[in-house]
Amino acid sequence: MNKGTNILVAIVMGSDSDLPVVKDAAVILEEFCVSYEIIVSSAHRSPDDTLKYVQSARRRGISVIIAAAGGAAHLAGVIASHFPLPVIGIPMATPQLGGVDSLYSTVQMPPGVPVASVGINAAKNAGILAIEILAVSDKLLEKKIVAYKENLAKSTREKSKKLQLLGYKEYTK
Amino acid sequence: MNKGTNILVAIVMGSDSDLPVVKDAAVILEEFCVSYEIIVSSAHRSPDDTLKYVQSARRRGISVIIAAAGGAAHLAGVIASHFPLPVIGIPMATPQLGGVDSLYSTVQMPPGVPVASVGINAAKNAGILAIEILAVSDKLLEKKIVAYKENLAKSTREKSKKLQLLGYKEYTK
Amino acid sequence: MNKGTNILVAIVMGSDSDLPVVKDAAVILEEFCVSYEIIVSSAHRSPDDTLKYVQSARRRGISVIIAAAGGAAHLAGVIASHFPLPVIGIPMATPQLGGVDSLYSTVQMPPGVPVASVGINAAKNAGILAIEILAVSDKLLEKKIVAYKENLAKSTREKSKKLQLLGYKEYTK
Amino acid sequence: MNKGTNILVAIVMGSDSDLPVVKDAAVILEEFCVSYEIIVSSAHRSPDDTLKYVQSARRRGISVIIAAAGGAAHLAGVIASHFPLPVIGIPMATPQLGGVDSLYSTVQMPPGVPVASVGINAAKNAGILAIEILAVSDKLLEKKIVAYKENLAKSTREKSKKLQLLGYKEYTK
Amino acid sequence: MNKGTNILVAIVMGSDSDLPVVKDAAVILEEFCVSYEIIVSSAHRSPDDTLKYVQSARRRGISVIIAAAGGAAHLAGVIASHFPLPVIGIPMATPQLGGVDSLYSTVQMPPGVPVASVGINAAKNAGILAIEILAVSDKLLEKKIVAYKENLAKSTREKSKKLQLLGYKEYTK
Amino acid sequence: MNKGTNILVAIVMGSDSDLPVVKDAAVILEEFCVSYEIIVSSAHRSPDDTLKYVQSARRRGISVIIAAAGGAAHLAGVIASHFPLPVIGIPMATPQLGGVDSLYSTVQMPPGVPVASVGINAAKNAGILAIEILAVSDKLLEKKIVAYKENLAKSTREKSKKLQLLGYKEYTK
Amino acid sequence: MNKGTNILVAIVMGSDSDLPVVKDAAVILEEFCVSYEIIVSSAHRSPDDTLKYVQSARRRGISVIIAAAGGAAHLAGVIASHFPLPVIGIPMATPQLGGVDSLYSTVQMPPGVPVASVGINAAKNAGILAIEILAVSDKLLEKKIVAYKENLAKSTREKSKKLQLLGYKEYTK
Amino acid sequence: MNKGTNILVAIVMGSDSDLPVVKDAAVILEEFCVSYEIIVSSAHRSPDDTLKYVQSARRRGISVIIAAAGGAAHLAGVIASHFPLPVIGIPMATPQLGGVDSLYSTVQMPPGVPVASVGINAAKNAGILAIEILAVSDKLLEKKIVAYKENLAKSTREKSKKLQLLGYKEYTK
Repeated sequence: MNKGTNILVAIVMGSDSDLPVVKDAAVILEEFCVSYEIIVSSAHRSPDDTLKYVQSARRRGISVIIAAAGGAAHLAGVIASHFPLPVIGIPMATPQLGGVDSLYSTVQMPPGVPVASVGINAAKNAGILAIEILAVSDKLLEKKIVAYKENLAKSTREKSKKLQLLGYKEYTK
Repeated sequence: MNKGTNILVAIVMGSDSDLPVVKDAAVILEEFCVSYEIIVSSAHRSPDDTLKYVQSARRRGISVIIAAAGGAAHLAGVIASHFPLPVIGIPMATPQLGGVDSLYSTVQMPPGVPVASVGINAAKNAGILAIEILAVSDKLLEKKIVAYKENLAKSTREKSKKLQLLGYKEYTK
Repeated sequence: MNKGTNILVAIVMGSDSDLPVVKDAAVILEEFCVSYEIIVSSAHRSPDDTLKYVQSARRRGISVIIAAAGGAAHLAGVIASHFPLPVIGIPMATPQLGGVDSLYSTVQMPPGVPVASVGINAAKNAGILAIEILAVSDKLLEKKIVAYKENLAKSTREKSKKLQLLGYKEYTK
Repeated sequence: MNKGTNILVAIVMGSDSDLPVVKDAAVILEEFCVSYEIIVSSAHRSPDDTLKYVQSARRRGISVIIAAAGGAAHLAGVIASHFPLPVIGIPMATPQLGGVDSLYSTVQMPPGVPVASVGINAAKNAGILAIEILAVSDKLLEKKIVAYKENLAKSTREKSKKLQLLGYKEYTK
Repeated sequence: MNKGTNILVAIVMGSDSDLPVVKDAAVILEEFCVSYEIIVSSAHRSPDDTLKYVQSARRRGISVIIAAAGGAAHLAGVIASHFPLPVIGIPMATPQLGGVDSLYSTVQMPPGVPVASVGINAAKNAGILAIEILAVSDKLLEKKIVAYKENLAKSTREKSKKLQLLGYKEYTK
Repeated sequence: MNKGTNILVAIVMGSDSDLPVVKDAAVILEEFCVSYEIIVSSAHRSPDDTLKYVQSARRRGISVIIAAAGGAAHLAGVIASHFPLPVIGIPMATPQLGGVDSLYSTVQMPPGVPVASVGINAAKNAGILAIEILAVSDKLLEKKIVAYKENLAKSTREKSKKLQLLGYKEYTK
Repeated sequence: MNKGTNILVAIVMGSDSDLPVVKDAAVILEEFCVSYEIIVSSAHRSPDDTLKYVQSARRRGISVIIAAAGGAAHLAGVIASHFPLPVIGIPMATPQLGGVDSLYSTVQMPPGVPVASVGINAAKNAGILAIEILAVSDKLLEKKIVAYKENLAKSTREKSKKLQLLGYKEYTK
Repeated sequence: MNKGTNILVAIVMGSDSDLPVVKDAAVILEEFCVSYEIIVSSAHRSPDDTLKYVQSARRRGISVIIAAAGGAAHLAGVIASHFPLPVIGIPMATPQLGGVDSLYSTVQMPPGVPVASVGINAAKNAGILAIEILAVSDKLLEKKIVAYKENLAKSTREKSKKLQLLGYKEYTK
């Protein structure tokens, strides 16, 4: 975590058991050299801390908050109700319902208080979306995103070439 | 609404558009002569008011809170995170998903912070459940519940007799 | 199990295979020093025993019944149809449908006969909800619940501090 | 309803509001001249009546019970737990979930206590299934079923001929 | 398998990979001394064989057919369209959708051609349902079913006693 | 319907009540001047007719069969099990489950017997898919499809221009 | 539509039939005085136009694209694969599946190419999210958002007061 | 992969991680001696490559394209929007939602642009469907398909005989 005066993105997760998935947001933010902080705070188990954190985040100039939670996943919504800038929700997979509960609890927000939901467990995409949001006013970040997406294409192209070279039997070995 | 000093049950709904369904909770509470108050307060659109209300409810001796919300239905959960006594959630039907989003958002709470969920749109049952909770320490209410359930049986029995008397053709006319 | 004269909570499960999950309700009741008993009785395989048990439970002054069942999970509903005080349903996870069958069978009760449903497999929350119900007329229990919820916040706060101290790479090791 | 000494099929519905759908079971039984009775009795609102009815049904020689209920649809299961002969469940459509709640509550019975579920709202098929069960030991009924199914084919064939004669434009007018 | 002249029940499965689940139907039929035969025949991969088998089954006096299939599970429906006596469908669990596809394909039959569906993978219940159907005209079988259900209750009761004796900690060891 | 010697596409529907939706397949085939015939035949209510029809279709040189059915929608699968050329399935919407039952029953076919499923109620797309299949060996049809898709783009473009010209307020009037 | 040189937000819908819902995004953008343009372009019916539009949007300095589509809703994803700044997806309700198909097609994007999904039909929230994204680098917009959210609370508060004044009977009249 | 001048079928997968499932399409094409090529190209990560590939495929005379993708599975739809001949979609299973997201994203295409969807992970069936499409104008392939389906029946028949010979106990060993 970068603890400079200029932290732009906050990653909040409802439980530290989400960390093995959620850390992918941190990894991609680091790759793009975007400063962030990462905390554990629950909408239900530490509601006052969550509220205080959101208020401080706003004062400290945080621009985007990523919130990850599972089940009755209220974290992103609670933050969005107190934060005037974009809140990205990561619906966490759940053992019984696969995360469809988390997805509905994250995305089906009432008029006036949007959450930007990414896919179930899609922490990496939450990070990229945060970067794209910052890139709206940061030409360098925009260029990096363009380059990143070109790299995705390149990597896919190389896999395809390798598959055509080796044939599927050799490739799957 | 009864505005006495001794209000036992609070009914909170996220939007006044829920009232035509949610009022059934008030109706049954009145039938059992249980004092209540009914307000509109949203987890997302008026989060600070909701928080203040819950804190005041606790001070004023409210024993049970019924919370009705739809979609990413966080209201019951938000209240439960600040209230030490039972919170009953009514998942409201939604036009697109029928209320399965509301149900998951209401019932799938994390360990430590339960919500007592009733069925989709089941405001009457929320009221009865509140009465049953109060009946734990109120013998008179318990007797009324026993009588109420006996009445349900009686009413069903009478319909059955009428059906057997008339036959289904006459009955469905 | 406490077998005193003053048992307040009954935990009923439809099959002893549910015990590894359902025991969490017992554990939390013990933590709060709430007397309880725990039995196996099925709505379908031992319906007469279940009926007799509910009638005896009422005579013996049991205040809350927790019922856990899976699939076409009728146990909580059957008990609720004979018991005038709160019945809490735990929908058990099922291997094929994840417990969505159990959840619907538990929560979608007809008007007049509510079941207070908690989340799928949420035995701990069932126990806490039972305690909150008893706390309505027991100031000591209410204080314990308040302390318990404060502890949840404290524990989350400590994890967050540790995460900020160690960073996510060290933390996930 | 036929009130002879020789009633073979009982139709039980949880609510008289189910009658407009459930009566189709009665209609087809009448068409096949199978004696039946039809009553209203709820697993939740009149559980003792339901129990008494099932015990009397067994003594009076009823061979098949058709049970229709919606939501947390326990009626067929409760009857099956007390009745040693076939119980056919009709999961009733529900306004919010379309009847998927009723279907799961009807069909997902535990090992040892089967319910024979037909489709959502499929009262006619419940009646035909009851007839097929009786036809196992009634050659005349079996012949009628064979004739009935041949008629289904004939009727479909005639519609197809008419469609080919008229063309789809004329046919849909 | 019993290959006598008097086979009453046929068990048909769409694929031999279903056998580890479907055999439970055979086991319970043997327990009740009901003669049966068990074959593999697919609605899609061997449709002509399936058709011939159903026609022969009818001539040979088979009274009930149990059909197990998964995915687009047409086997029970195809048999029901050619067989005038009861057809019981077992929707097999599927790796991706848990068997909800099989359940819908089995139970949602059109008016006129019912299938008696049991729960997902519920082969044992399919066997018991077949026995209950035969018991309609076989007093001995009916008595056995009554005894079987009493045994279910007894076995549950014993587990409950053991649990109360040992306590849940000892029991789950 | 075209009754020439050279019919290429057959449209089969399980019930004439499907015609108002299914006729869209006929309309588009006429638009592309592809000869077709349209019949009513049910997998369950007229299974022998269906079988005979499929066998005759193959002899008469029909190249593609479109099959529309709802609920436990076996029609496309039954045809596919007897027909060596492409079978296109239209899962019909159902009043209770929206057609998700039909979709699963149509698309989840076992290995060896594919059905080409289009979307729920997507009769027009079934017709276009049939045309695309014929276009594999018919250059003129391929050209028509290319032109058809260009027209789709053109029509969309014109709507966009109109919207930009009028503004959304005027446009929605 | 504002056709200035400085358009910040683009609203793209797959079909003009989406306009009655999607226009709510335009209405809220106008309320916040954010310049936008609104077009019809389909991922499937006019793919080349969509591609050209995205490329031009990027050159012309558009900062956020809102994309609305239903069913196999690829529009937002297709745009996101070519656009380096935030893409907001509105999953449109569908007549058969309620929009759960659109939601999954919009939100479940692969790693590397996020779409920010809002709720089903939530066009207003899409507009607000676009504003929040722009507000990251526009203090005036941020203030407006803060004021907007305070107004939401105020409006809710007033409804609650009115409800307490009138009582639910008068209020629902 | 066959790289002749006469390639008829293209298999495109969104990610090389799909290969272990998708290769079954290649295997069956080889078994029928149908020339094909197999590549990796993503609708989202390499959209320009995908577009170029589809345009080249059309010029090179490819007759059928099989496209496999998971989650927001747009690959088949994107190809179908640019290709005038049949596109077969394979919805890949997903870890959280089982592939229901992929299925909806593949099959629910808008009017005018069909995708022929097979079942979840049903790569083998995608291959067979491609062969059936080619068989429309290739009598030899049609004969092979007839023989293939006869073999399916034969193989099922042999398993059934073995089961009857051994009994289920021996067979499942």
